[in-house]
Amino acid sequence: MLDQLREHCGVFGVFGAPEAANLTYLGIHALQHRGQESAGIVASDGTLLRDHCAAGLVADVFDKPILASLKGESAIGHVRYSTAGGSHPRNAQPLIARGAEGSLAIAHNGNLVNAAQLRARLEKAGSLFQTDTDTESILHLIARSPNSDLLERIGDAVRQLQGSFSLLMLTEKMLIGVRDPLGLRPLVLGRVNESYALASETCALDLIEAEYLREIEPGEMVVIDQHGLRSLRPLGPARPARCIFELVYFARPDSLLFGRSVYQVRKESGRRLAKEHPAPADLVIPVPDSGSPAAVGYAEASGLPFDFGLIRGHYMGRTFIEPQHSIRHLGVKLKLSAVAPLLRGKRVAVVDDSIVRGTTSRKLVTMLRAAGAREVHLRISSPPTTWPCYLGIDTPTREELIASAHGVEEIARFVTADSLGYLSLDGLRQAAGGESGWCDACFSGRYPIEIPPSSESLRTGREDGSES
Amino acid sequence: MLDQLREHCGVFGVFGAPEAANLTYLGIHALQHRGQESAGIVASDGTLLRDHCAAGLVADVFDKPILASLKGESAIGHVRYSTAGGSHPRNAQPLIARGAEGSLAIAHNGNLVNAAQLRARLEKAGSLFQTDTDTESILHLIARSPNSDLLERIGDAVRQLQGSFSLLMLTEKMLIGVRDPLGLRPLVLGRVNESYALASETCALDLIEAEYLREIEPGEMVVIDQHGLRSLRPLGPARPARCIFELVYFARPDSLLFGRSVYQVRKESGRRLAKEHPAPADLVIPVPDSGSPAAVGYAEASGLPFDFGLIRGHYMGRTFIEPQHSIRHLGVKLKLSAVAPLLRGKRVAVVDDSIVRGTTSRKLVTMLRAAGAREVHLRISSPPTTWPCYLGIDTPTREELIASAHGVEEIARFVTADSLGYLSLDGLRQAAGGESGWCDACFSGRYPIEIPPSSESLRTGREDGSES
Amino acid sequence: MLDQLREHCGVFGVFGAPEAANLTYLGIHALQHRGQESAGIVASDGTLLRDHCAAGLVADVFDKPILASLKGESAIGHVRYSTAGGSHPRNAQPLIARGAEGSLAIAHNGNLVNAAQLRARLEKAGSLFQTDTDTESILHLIARSPNSDLLERIGDAVRQLQGSFSLLMLTEKMLIGVRDPLGLRPLVLGRVNESYALASETCALDLIEAEYLREIEPGEMVVIDQHGLRSLRPLGPARPARCIFELVYFARPDSLLFGRSVYQVRKESGRRLAKEHPAPADLVIPVPDSGSPAAVGYAEASGLPFDFGLIRGHYMGRTFIEPQHSIRHLGVKLKLSAVAPLLRGKRVAVVDDSIVRGTTSRKLVTMLRAAGAREVHLRISSPPTTWPCYLGIDTPTREELIASAHGVEEIARFVTADSLGYLSLDGLRQAAGGESGWCDACFSGRYPIEIPPSSESLRTGREDGSES
Amino acid sequence: MLDQLREHCGVFGVFGAPEAANLTYLGIHALQHRGQESAGIVASDGTLLRDHCAAGLVADVFDKPILASLKGESAIGHVRYSTAGGSHPRNAQPLIARGAEGSLAIAHNGNLVNAAQLRARLEKAGSLFQTDTDTESILHLIARSPNSDLLERIGDAVRQLQGSFSLLMLTEKMLIGVRDPLGLRPLVLGRVNESYALASETCALDLIEAEYLREIEPGEMVVIDQHGLRSLRPLGPARPARCIFELVYFARPDSLLFGRSVYQVRKESGRRLAKEHPAPADLVIPVPDSGSPAAVGYAEASGLPFDFGLIRGHYMGRTFIEPQHSIRHLGVKLKLSAVAPLLRGKRVAVVDDSIVRGTTSRKLVTMLRAAGAREVHLRISSPPTTWPCYLGIDTPTREELIASAHGVEEIARFVTADSLGYLSLDGLRQAAGGESGWCDACFSGRYPIEIPPSSESLRTGREDGSES
Repeated sequence: MLDQLREHCGVFGVFGAPEAANLTYLGIHALQHRGQESAGIVASDGTLLRDHCAAGLVADVFDKPILASLKGESAIGHVRYSTAGGSHPRNAQPLIARGAEGSLAIAHNGNLVNAAQLRARLEKAGSLFQTDTDTESILHLIARSPNSDLLERIGDAVRQLQGSFSLLMLTEKMLIGVRDPLGLRPLVLGRVNESYALASETCALDLIEAEYLREIEPGEMVVIDQHGLRSLRPLGPARPARCIFELVYFARPDSLLFGRSVYQVRKESGRRLAKEHPAPADLVIPVPDSGSPAAVGYAEASGLPFDFGLIRGHYMGRTFIEPQHSIRHLGVKLKLSAVAPLLRGKRVAVVDDSIVRGTTSRKLVTMLRAAGAREVHLRISSPPTTWPCYLGIDTPTREELIASAHGVEEIARFVTADSLGYLSLDGLRQAAGGESGWCDACFSGRYPIEIPPSSESLRTGREDGSES
Repeated sequence: MLDQLREHCGVFGVFGAPEAANLTYLGIHALQHRGQESAGIVASDGTLLRDHCAAGLVADVFDKPILASLKGESAIGHVRYSTAGGSHPRNAQPLIARGAEGSLAIAHNGNLVNAAQLRARLEKAGSLFQTDTDTESILHLIARSPNSDLLERIGDAVRQLQGSFSLLMLTEKMLIGVRDPLGLRPLVLGRVNESYALASETCALDLIEAEYLREIEPGEMVVIDQHGLRSLRPLGPARPARCIFELVYFARPDSLLFGRSVYQVRKESGRRLAKEHPAPADLVIPVPDSGSPAAVGYAEASGLPFDFGLIRGHYMGRTFIEPQHSIRHLGVKLKLSAVAPLLRGKRVAVVDDSIVRGTTSRKLVTMLRAAGAREVHLRISSPPTTWPCYLGIDTPTREELIASAHGVEEIARFVTADSLGYLSLDGLRQAAGGESGWCDACFSGRYPIEIPPSSESLRTGREDGSES
Repeated sequence: MLDQLREHCGVFGVFGAPEAANLTYLGIHALQHRGQESAGIVASDGTLLRDHCAAGLVADVFDKPILASLKGESAIGHVRYSTAGGSHPRNAQPLIARGAEGSLAIAHNGNLVNAAQLRARLEKAGSLFQTDTDTESILHLIARSPNSDLLERIGDAVRQLQGSFSLLMLTEKMLIGVRDPLGLRPLVLGRVNESYALASETCALDLIEAEYLREIEPGEMVVIDQHGLRSLRPLGPARPARCIFELVYFARPDSLLFGRSVYQVRKESGRRLAKEHPAPADLVIPVPDSGSPAAVGYAEASGLPFDFGLIRGHYMGRTFIEPQHSIRHLGVKLKLSAVAPLLRGKRVAVVDDSIVRGTTSRKLVTMLRAAGAREVHLRISSPPTTWPCYLGIDTPTREELIASAHGVEEIARFVTADSLGYLSLDGLRQAAGGESGWCDACFSGRYPIEIPPSSESLRTGREDGSES
Repeated sequence: MLDQLREHCGVFGVFGAPEAANLTYLGIHALQHRGQESAGIVASDGTLLRDHCAAGLVADVFDKPILASLKGESAIGHVRYSTAGGSHPRNAQPLIARGAEGSLAIAHNGNLVNAAQLRARLEKAGSLFQTDTDTESILHLIARSPNSDLLERIGDAVRQLQGSFSLLMLTEKMLIGVRDPLGLRPLVLGRVNESYALASETCALDLIEAEYLREIEPGEMVVIDQHGLRSLRPLGPARPARCIFELVYFARPDSLLFGRSVYQVRKESGRRLAKEHPAPADLVIPVPDSGSPAAVGYAEASGLPFDFGLIRGHYMGRTFIEPQHSIRHLGVKLKLSAVAPLLRGKRVAVVDDSIVRGTTSRKLVTMLRAAGAREVHLRISSPPTTWPCYLGIDTPTREELIASAHGVEEIARFVTADSLGYLSLDGLRQAAGGESGWCDACFSGRYPIEIPPSSESLRTGREDGSES
């Protein structure tokens, strides 16, 4: 509803730790920003996998008796966001395959671009699907591998996948983590006492007081069991293409991601933005909280005073009632309110992380003017978002992205700002700490792997999928 | 659980507006920070009062069918916080008295210090109480008044009350607002189209796009019906004593309160704090979000850079599961996390609004040091909190207030800060815009009315109540 | 919905027994037939009354944790049926008055005919009512009594009541039972080990393996405390008028009521009915289960074979979904189904306990004919129901009672029976074991006390209430 | 808990009828006695299958909005009972396989004796199972059939099944019914207006006012689509072996089953029982309601008077709370209560349908003596139950069946009856209307198909399964 891009998922796992389910609960709670639709945990006590998954926030899905029932010293967890069509409870993860020779649970952050092809091939061969997820195909591929060794079966399966995947798998005796060869989505390794933990972001390690060890490498598979940790390479080498948008918006600012401080990258983006696009303003304010680090950097580099002209509400809730006699911009006003006495008569530079459709920015600018701002100069700490993501982030179709068909001047007019400035792609790469190694397709249109037409048509809603 | 003071309640009412229940829903949603335990709305369609009250947040207590059932063009609403002993659902407000000659609903923000005496007298006379609230006594006093005119009956009742009360009352045909003679708790009047609205704070008017007209005066009673608005004076004149702590912490920063901008008062407190207690620091960070305006003022006045060294989580939830093998300071860590790359090796000035028991401050300082801060200088934008409140704010007993028995040096040692500075009471009054007219008993011990011993013993848990 | 008369309530109490709440749960479960809308229990542990009341069946309202929370060795419970208008949860019983000098819980089976007058008087004096029940007036009368002794206060109160009342009251230290001077509704005393129990019917005593001692006498008050049982007489003597309809339909057949076996009274009614109205039939079938005892008596006295031509469903549920394309008589068919192979070509005597509106009887006769019955002779084991009850039983208005305006011949035509016979009032009295001592106003119109016009208009829906 | 045998399931389906989901709701409601653990409906609107399944009774699982969401003119439904281990919600039926070429829903009454073998084979080939049901194997067999035509794929699948199965399947365009070659479980065909309906018993047809046409033949497959009804024979001919216990106990007495009136078969069993085992009694009473038809037959043939000495409670609930200070036989007493005034001093012949473990019979005899019966003569309208069922009925292990190791005299002593008589197997067959064509393995040990050792060990809990 709100005008934002959203991450698909977050994953967390731990092996060999007392109260594994409790730690996993905290781990996915710390990753809640990566998915708010459903949450699930599978735990192993060495002989049996027990699971609980349901729609809702982590704090609502689990309570003490449920966590107590998830016995054992190993567990994986998942939080999930999904598009409307796929929010059926049966799609909640982790998924479990239970067979005579043992069970395998799987939690997936990412998106397979050859999902439709894989599924068609498997269904033709007689596999029955219980969910609408691309993740389930991975389980079927493992089940149908001719190999007898589980790790080889997993290798067989993941070599058939195209797209982004940071996977956690749990059997009665093992925790396995796999990251796609491009390293599109993050996955980190930590240690808590004698145990290992795997997580999408370091903020999950921090909460449980685990020590951050390193990223799982693109293309790497780690296997953790009672003998310790082994690193395997079932997937051939590739040129990494880490998602730069994780740094711009998705990841939590207190996380280290891809070895970088998310907060510092964002603040540096703000500094560079001030150099590229100075503003004739009396003060700099963020769109809280996502624009805050860049706004601090912008204020610092520009020498303008930083202030809070927009206040973020603490009780937005997930749902609200709108009077029929409509209140203008109610959605935005429930989230943010303006501090009129501060803004009255001022020229304001407002810093936000990105513009998707432009509708929210337009409401914010209107709200600031209604509160008395004399001029509103909008500054965006990333380049124009012009291309949809097929690799794990929920974006609108290309048609809905305002920057795909409109220049900066036009967008400025649409959002009614006195001026508008975007950080350059080069500036963002510099702020992120390196020229190359990024997937920046949402800004550049250069996808690191070929996107099958079916994926495109999925996004555009057109049969031919010929949007480019 | 967390180490905070809490407001008891918030109230909102509207008369003569289509979709009154929907507007009231939004109004109390905007006042959610004043009470998170229960919420309730009573609506009138001119002949019948309909109500819905339940434990929980506004967004959880109400849904579309419930709001649709609350028919009519007038409504009052209430959000409530209460101490553990009194959180029984039957105490949810608004309360309703239904009689042969009509019904009267009442919503109360404040605390009566002669509640026990009133109740004892009424019970002896045969009144049956259904709740544990002091508010119910007001209904019984109205019911037993010998007068036949309702407004006179209300006058009879409120003249017997001692303490703080901002009251909203609703009958089938009238909306009534009353504020105690000291004006301890806020109450404002607004206009939305042809209708009047009453609210604890202006942020509730802003959300429904109502125009702010004025405060209800201390001791004033306003009566709104089909003929318009009348102002009555059932309560004699008194020297106002508005709660200064509303400005320090409780009220939303975007509200106008007692005619002042809450945000600007807090920022000015920060500025004065910087003058009174400069810090040898490399950067200024707030304890978000309540310390943010003062931190901006502090940075501005001190010339030190402002930054975000603590990140506030968006998904705290209301409940969490703590592993038995305890994680240190989990409660605080679920709420706030430190940005280590920013803090490493730095001398940090941390700005917060107040210290209650000191335990949270101690955890925060520890967390900042663990994240690498070299020195931590704690600055508090209000004076030491030394006395409990009996007038509508939930405070611990005097014994639990760290500043009641400890000097600033001792507190600094307890919270392990390198230095600690509190804003002076005079500084706070200046920031609030005036020398006098305040209740600042929590800082000064000078209560604007006599506190009966029973109220004190209630707080201290001692029979004699002789704590001073 | 179904065409039945319904009892208003059932009560149960126990004093001085371990697990008093569990015993009370079983007691009101055994009395479930006397009220299915709400259930409640109040327990005392000697110093505190704890309660749980909710809408629903006993087995749904209570679970193990709830019962475990109702601590103590004394408890009273209540099951309730109410008319649609009064089914608000706040009306669930037992009601509790909590005061400085202790608490008093009350559970009431019966109906006060001067309820409106009492309430008007109390409201005028400033009493606030929280429920729509006549029972609450009793609490207010007790609270306002000038006496200081509780038993005298109760005496003051009950002497002001007109109508039917079997009352149980519980304080922290006492269990009290009171029965109205006419003894309209039942109330029995039992002993379980060293403890006393009070119940509407003996079936509740049987379930908990209590020994039946005796009826509470009309006009008697029993007080049970740690010193044992005392019998008081706060109410003057009157000519008893026990409700004969309890024997005809309401009470459970395995109960002893008013000292008589309900089953044997019904079977004897069937025998007398066979003598008064023989039928030219091939077999006798009951309308199960309420018509079963009388049908056995009818078969026995007539010499005709007894059989089951109608089968009662075990899973009626409380609610069902009716297709828009209506199935005829779905409500009756969900409850009863006909055994066509048995009925085909037969002349059938069908025995039921009473006819209210006639609509259900009509559907049953139709169903029997559709199943192949050649002739249907309807026999009713009580006289025509011609007058509404104001004394504790839910009856339709006089207009809706088919027998109030139609003779037996007309009713037979309406229900499409080949013949119809009612037991005479004299026959019923003989079956019940005595000429006099009954309230049989529903058959005779001779009410044992004066019915105020307001009660009548309540039933008839007319202002003047002048139906007689 | 109670000492009864239980049916596994009931099925209902309808094709081409407006409000198909509503009719199916009524159909499975009428079959509620065949399964009380979970209920489910799948409906087709011609292009999409929609489903709702959940644990609980039909009336609790569905409500108006849910039924309204199950759009379309075709539907199948299922009620289920399962053993404790298998009551996980994911096992609720109907199951659905959704594939690229359409979906297939399946509802199953019966039990496959080669379920373990089928599942092992399918898992080895890479099929992933989502439930613990034998029914899911049927879906996998259909998915893996090399044929392209759905009906041939179904034929391939059902030819691999051994055991009992009355199956309903629904696709977007078709309703299919299949009955195993032995005809172990019932399945009937009806017509409602222009539509066809399939059901386990005729009572489901009666409730929706459908006309009964015929049984689906053993080994027959009927296919209903827009062109009408076709009968296929995918399964070779076999000697029918209909379950005689359906007639003794499971089926509703108002149903026609296997072309016979269940009620008349039971009554005739009672008549023959009276001849085989007369009793020196003063009256005949049934154990209601299952023993009622046989008791009427017994009374008729013996010339003894029939009466109700045991009353069945109407509000048993599904769960109850037992006081720690145990009440003897509480479970039975919540279900049945004795009418002491009738039984006192009498010699009573009690008629029940069967004895499983003997514990309930023992409690009943004790209860009758406690109510005053002088002699208790127990008569059972079927032969001793000596062998477990592997073909769709939940029975205890052989060890738990009292008659498997004890003679009639011993059982009489155990249940403390003055005498005990069972109907002979020949007598039961005569009452059922024929010498042959029955599965009476529970009485005779002669199973109509070979039972694999794995099935037996499942029941007996022993590894070798060599119980015979």
